[in-house]
Amino acid sequence: MIIVPEKEIAGLLTRADAFDAVEKVFASMSKGSAYNFPVIREAIGYEDALYGFKGGFDKAGMALGLKAGGYWPNNLAKHGHINHQSTVFLFDPDTGMVKAMVGGNLLTALRTAAASSVSIKHLSRKDAKVMGMVGAGHQATFQLRAALEQRDFEKVIGWNYHPEMLPNIEKVANEAGVPFEAVPLEGMVEADVVISITSTFAPTIMASHISDGTHIACMGTDTKGKQEIEAALLAQTTVFTDEVAQSISIGEAQHAIAEGLIRQSDVNELGAVINGTHPGRTSDDEITLFDGTGVGLQDLAVASSIVDLALEKGIATIVDF
Amino acid sequence: MIIVPEKEIAGLLTRADAFDAVEKVFASMSKGSAYNFPVIREAIGYEDALYGFKGGFDKAGMALGLKAGGYWPNNLAKHGHINHQSTVFLFDPDTGMVKAMVGGNLLTALRTAAASSVSIKHLSRKDAKVMGMVGAGHQATFQLRAALEQRDFEKVIGWNYHPEMLPNIEKVANEAGVPFEAVPLEGMVEADVVISITSTFAPTIMASHISDGTHIACMGTDTKGKQEIEAALLAQTTVFTDEVAQSISIGEAQHAIAEGLIRQSDVNELGAVINGTHPGRTSDDEITLFDGTGVGLQDLAVASSIVDLALEKGIATIVDF
Repeated sequence: MIIVPEKEIAGLLTRADAFDAVEKVFASMSKGSAYNFPVIREAIGYEDALYGFKGGFDKAGMALGLKAGGYWPNNLAKHGHINHQSTVFLFDPDTGMVKAMVGGNLLTALRTAAASSVSIKHLSRKDAKVMGMVGAGHQATFQLRAALEQRDFEKVIGWNYHPEMLPNIEKVANEAGVPFEAVPLEGMVEADVVISITSTFAPTIMASHISDGTHIACMGTDTKGKQEIEAALLAQTTVFTDEVAQSISIGEAQHAIAEGLIRQSDVNELGAVINGTHPGRTSDDEITLFDGTGVGLQDLAVASSIVDLALEKGIATIVDF
Repeated sequence: MIIVPEKEIAGLLTRADAFDAVEKVFASMSKGSAYNFPVIREAIGYEDALYGFKGGFDKAGMALGLKAGGYWPNNLAKHGHINHQSTVFLFDPDTGMVKAMVGGNLLTALRTAAASSVSIKHLSRKDAKVMGMVGAGHQATFQLRAALEQRDFEKVIGWNYHPEMLPNIEKVANEAGVPFEAVPLEGMVEADVVISITSTFAPTIMASHISDGTHIACMGTDTKGKQEIEAALLAQTTVFTDEVAQSISIGEAQHAIAEGLIRQSDVNELGAVINGTHPGRTSDDEITLFDGTGVGLQDLAVASSIVDLALEKGIATIVDF
């Protein structure tokens, strides 16, 4: 039984490792060699907590298990812990025996950033120069850092409901040697790639904010009712996602589906583009959209990489179990 | 982070501990202070394995978490491991952080045995003398051992589809100082308590095999289609269960419900009897039946007891996580 505690993850997993793991598992999902189990998510009636399990099995990557944990809104104030808490458990697909336990907090941030980064690699224009950020919270810094590695961006523009948070992402841009500029939402027309990473129940990004040829990665919608972009805009784009079933029910595509603007068959798997079974972007003025809903298999894939790295570097704790 | 490996469980958990934990959690479920999450159970398409998660939260016992694992039918032949493999993970309900990991194999056997034992304590006649076993496999030995502690039984009678397995339970009876007799199914009319612990898709026990006043614990049905007793017999009994929703869908009561012989409101919680909000048995000739479907909260309750015992005895492995 291998244990990799939360505090070791930062020193082990590079963004490139997370990227490779997520790209591979999206490909495996689209080939039918990996699938996610139904998600359990429960309001437990204590501490206003949401708790649950996201599991799956990737036969290609031989990753079986789950991420367990959730959201404890009072953690920081009461206990000094971050509010999102999760742990990944890997099982041996050959025997059903538990194989590894991996801290899931930083892992979740990195795998979510990797997902939009994989979408940028496969869907944005090669000549993209302006990176647009809608959202500037903690997770936005991870998304931006990973995104900047995919194209030769010359500028980052950013908007946030609370503008005082924009220095979070300005700092990341500057660390990557890219200038930053705060813009109103209308200013997003300048962006070639837009990542939205907000948590809202009404659309922020309208069709008038987005230019032809842009790639949009919507990373904030993972619950019924949440919405980042207006449904009419989504309906103008070619939609890709990590998992179609989640995209149309709890992801960004739920609204355009509910309003009858698109059908399930209009939502494509990003994995199909990776595998070459979907052409992806077919013109320079097409708007592509990645609806990143977040799946358990991403967590398992990245956790498996972490275990391999920890064993390689002799950092894993091995316990008799 | 506390770890209690499988090999330590036998030396830690007594039958009395398992009994107390299961009795308490059934009571908590019936009071509404504990609930099970939806069960995930997946045929993963590899090694013919069934894998899944049973989770829940007991606010009274402050137990939150899940049992993960399943059934790997080739384990014994290929790897020398038992085919059922599971692990229990406990989380801190105050923070959502992982708290403990406990081997789940022996634990599952003991909590299942505790459930029928709790039902015998609360539902069988006080003067029960003859214990009847239908089924004589590995799990039957656990059920019988726990059952014999609940009444002053003077004889154990047993039937099994493969009679050559009867010595398994004869040995347990003799160890408890009780004589054993192999009987045909018709001979079960002599029993005051019957435990059925078989895995079949057609009924074994008919109304003609059971006398008035008997308590029957059906412990083998946990899947749609499985059946141990004929529906007409179940309809003659006062039915109790661990969880009504499971009893009527995947438990022994599913067939009588499907045939319209009983309604959901005819299925009572054993926890209500423990709490004194249901009278339980009301006459000496009433046939009572416990439909033990198995819930995640039993696993969490027993795992919590194991963690407490391991800490007390200094046996727990503590790892930095």
